[in-house]
Amino acid sequence: MVNEMKETIGFLAGILTTFSGLPQLLYSYKHKDVKSFTLKFLFLLIGGLTLWVLYGLLIKSLPIILFNSIAICLWIPILGMKIKMK
Amino acid sequence: MVNEMKETIGFLAGILTTFSGLPQLLYSYKHKDVKSFTLKFLFLLIGGLTLWVLYGLLIKSLPIILFNSIAICLWIPILGMKIKMK
Repeated sequence: MVNEMKETIGFLAGILTTFSGLPQLLYSYKHKDVKSFTLKFLFLLIGGLTLWVLYGLLIKSLPIILFNSIAICLWIPILGMKIKMK
Repeated sequence: MVNEMKETIGFLAGILTTFSGLPQLLYSYKHKDVKSFTLKFLFLLIGGLTLWVLYGLLIKSLPIILFNSIAICLWIPILGMKIKMK
């Protein structure tokens, strides 16, 4: 029961941090607005997420692979817009 | 040796994703620019990071507690600026 609660909280934490990028992507795409983002933030974030996927592959953890792959898919288009509009 | 490499990659992944917020905070603070950020993104992210800290406390994982606490400290001021400038 306690372990179940722990895992639920961890799962919910992963859902929230991963999908936080979704409303941002929808807004940025609709309004073509990525001005406030710095390239440093986007490169560090996507670089870090890529290492998380690699880590997930190495330790064979599906949640780590899955959550971070989804996050990469949400942030790559924002990086693309930033580079294009720079 | 292989385990050491795995842990190094995981550690580096944590460093990059956690500290990606630092250049963003420095830029946003200096230029008073948080316009492109959506409140939804910031609330979901900080909510998720808070759940990660709670998860870290429950499973007694210092890296999870530490990395996510640092990230919260970097994103709370950006959320504060966003609310103030809205």
